[in-house]
Amino acid sequence: MKEQVDLIVTGASEGVTVSGGGDGPLCGHAMDDCGVVREGAVAMRDGVVVAVDERSVLDAVYEGQHVLDARGGTILPGLIDPHTHPVFAATREEEFDMRAKGATYQEITASGGGIFSSVRSLRETPRDQLESRLKIHLDRFLACGTTTIEAKSGYGLSLEHEILSLELLMEADVHHRVDIDPTCLAAHQVPPEFQDDREAYVDLVVNQILPEVSRRGIARSADVFCDEGAFTVEESRAVLAGAQKVGLDLRVHADELAPVGAAELAAQMGARTADHLVMVSPEGIDAMVNENVTPILLPGTSFSLRLPNKAPADAMIEAGLPLALASDFNPGTCHISSMIEIIALACGTLGLTVAQALVAATRNGAETLGVSGVRGRIQPGALADLVLLDVPNHLFLGYQMGWNPVRAVVKNGEVAWQR
Amino acid sequence: MKEQVDLIVTGASEGVTVSGGGDGPLCGHAMDDCGVVREGAVAMRDGVVVAVDERSVLDAVYEGQHVLDARGGTILPGLIDPHTHPVFAATREEEFDMRAKGATYQEITASGGGIFSSVRSLRETPRDQLESRLKIHLDRFLACGTTTIEAKSGYGLSLEHEILSLELLMEADVHHRVDIDPTCLAAHQVPPEFQDDREAYVDLVVNQILPEVSRRGIARSADVFCDEGAFTVEESRAVLAGAQKVGLDLRVHADELAPVGAAELAAQMGARTADHLVMVSPEGIDAMVNENVTPILLPGTSFSLRLPNKAPADAMIEAGLPLALASDFNPGTCHISSMIEIIALACGTLGLTVAQALVAATRNGAETLGVSGVRGRIQPGALADLVLLDVPNHLFLGYQMGWNPVRAVVKNGEVAWQR
Repeated sequence: MKEQVDLIVTGASEGVTVSGGGDGPLCGHAMDDCGVVREGAVAMRDGVVVAVDERSVLDAVYEGQHVLDARGGTILPGLIDPHTHPVFAATREEEFDMRAKGATYQEITASGGGIFSSVRSLRETPRDQLESRLKIHLDRFLACGTTTIEAKSGYGLSLEHEILSLELLMEADVHHRVDIDPTCLAAHQVPPEFQDDREAYVDLVVNQILPEVSRRGIARSADVFCDEGAFTVEESRAVLAGAQKVGLDLRVHADELAPVGAAELAAQMGARTADHLVMVSPEGIDAMVNENVTPILLPGTSFSLRLPNKAPADAMIEAGLPLALASDFNPGTCHISSMIEIIALACGTLGLTVAQALVAATRNGAETLGVSGVRGRIQPGALADLVLLDVPNHLFLGYQMGWNPVRAVVKNGEVAWQR
Repeated sequence: MKEQVDLIVTGASEGVTVSGGGDGPLCGHAMDDCGVVREGAVAMRDGVVVAVDERSVLDAVYEGQHVLDARGGTILPGLIDPHTHPVFAATREEEFDMRAKGATYQEITASGGGIFSSVRSLRETPRDQLESRLKIHLDRFLACGTTTIEAKSGYGLSLEHEILSLELLMEADVHHRVDIDPTCLAAHQVPPEFQDDREAYVDLVVNQILPEVSRRGIARSADVFCDEGAFTVEESRAVLAGAQKVGLDLRVHADELAPVGAAELAAQMGARTADHLVMVSPEGIDAMVNENVTPILLPGTSFSLRLPNKAPADAMIEAGLPLALASDFNPGTCHISSMIEIIALACGTLGLTVAQALVAATRNGAETLGVSGVRGRIQPGALADLVLLDVPNHLFLGYQMGWNPVRAVVKNGEVAWQR
């Protein structure tokens, strides 16, 4: 008599489990092994993985109430996107063309474009329109195989509009199949109305916005954009200390445009992640190693911004860090929803192998989002979040670009999207 | 009384006509204008465009038997891919991973991978399997909005298998909605059995394969891979002279891996195109200008191969050349079917604006394929080949990557594919 389960996914050429090497993220060259099971199949019950093994082994033990045929494709853990900005009112494709004609990030910001343009449009847009726009973005994430995102506010930059943004994310987490881990990024930029008194805005963030966000329980983390043209290290330190005081986890936009020492600050403050890191110094990498900060790299953004430098992914892996990847999906500097495209860009521009990029796009990102061991991998006890691809093995993720290979997405043990 | 037409596509935010500036391709900075018509609509009859204009103007004059609603999206000419290798038996995704681990193009070829591996598998594969595989590739092209391709043989490298490859392309041209312009690339590599007598293989190509291909009328052009590790300039000259003698148009794989003078050769021999050109010399660019050779750039390949250099697109535009783009779709060095992804890669890696990349992905590629003025643009008298995108303007083509925005494809005035 076979053991009954709710759902079995079988018929794949390959299952990628990302489940080796014990607890926590995979560090350094442990990322070289993404855990490939030939003809891997997965059994699920009550929204949780019961077993993952070769088809013949699994079929001998389990019987599924439902069976989903992977048709010779590849099974991955649901993809994890640990850095997104999906609450905005309007796209900014014209800035892409300005960059093609030579404008820099800082020039676009100075001309009233960039983040400020998104702040203006968000503040002017009714709540229900922001909500339906957010839903469109989440639908696209799901169709691209992403089952969990970290999502930031940061186009409100006022108490009212930061709370609005985070409330929309909390509501969407309830109503949408994509799981959302919200982060308050009130310290994204000093808004226009505070340009003559930056200190007053930092004070507003630290003493009003972050405490109110914490009191309402609408974000688990806080973030600050610590870089040239954004917040200084000292301003950022004040924001992070304020966040810590009200019990929020810390994440940092670090050293994207200049090596300002943001990675070092992230380490000093015990941040979970330092993100971007295009210009990080060797000292910054050392500091992250010493304080267990996870580097989150955003190759879609470097590509879209045509930055001349690349984040030193190799050095981070050699240093034994647990590299993660994210889309940075946002209206201005990266409009890519697909972590599969991000994997291809990471292979092509950062020199990662497909296995390393896959680990970075699943388990290592998931481990920055709170509860350990339940997302971004396929193993007994993990959430039953899977992606079925129409390609015969995981190496296609680097090889084939510009086409979404996702054929189905399973969320909490149920088929949540199918092509 | 309105004029009756077969099909009207209307309801778009934007129509991109690429129809300005008279006949022929758009050269140099004429490529800056891709011909955007706000709320553009298109009327078609008997497979040909009758009119393209603002919706209100067009609706006042024409009545369509069928109407296709573009739902606020963007209308483009059917995309043109003037350099593909779609006849092969097996993918080579493992080489992508070898490159990630540091192997070079030449090292992969030397180890028996690369083109030789595709030659072995093509020769071993039954005709019907090659045929069904080709159909899969063509279906993907169409779903990505490509309505016409140039397609090369070149994994046969024997009289029998080169003819087989070209016959498959000719048959597919008849049976598939994608139009195919076949090119004989018997001079892709010297096959293994001729490694000790290169001259004998050049002789076979010149005196047997190309004449037989011409006699059978199964290719319009011939191509040669003139580069380091492929054919020398003198060998290539012999191949091109042989092709010319039997009435074939000339195309050249030129200066991808080293500046061997292949662009200069293409100019001397009156070739229509020189393709790749990553390492082309300034003299090569001058020669192409003087002899009206169209440069076809393949940014997907440079990206997939992680080449340290980029084709000098800016210099070519400044020199007044009519730049074209292509996918180079093949089993080894670029597995991208989507010209939309190629446009995004061209913007991100070659510094093109979206308008320039669009002109290069439509009209300028089409103009290398024989009859002038009928493909790659939307204007009265052109073939009614259109693509409908689910994005509000053409700038999204650079901005958004990793997602196929094609909602429908019209070929010869009929809906050939719909999402």
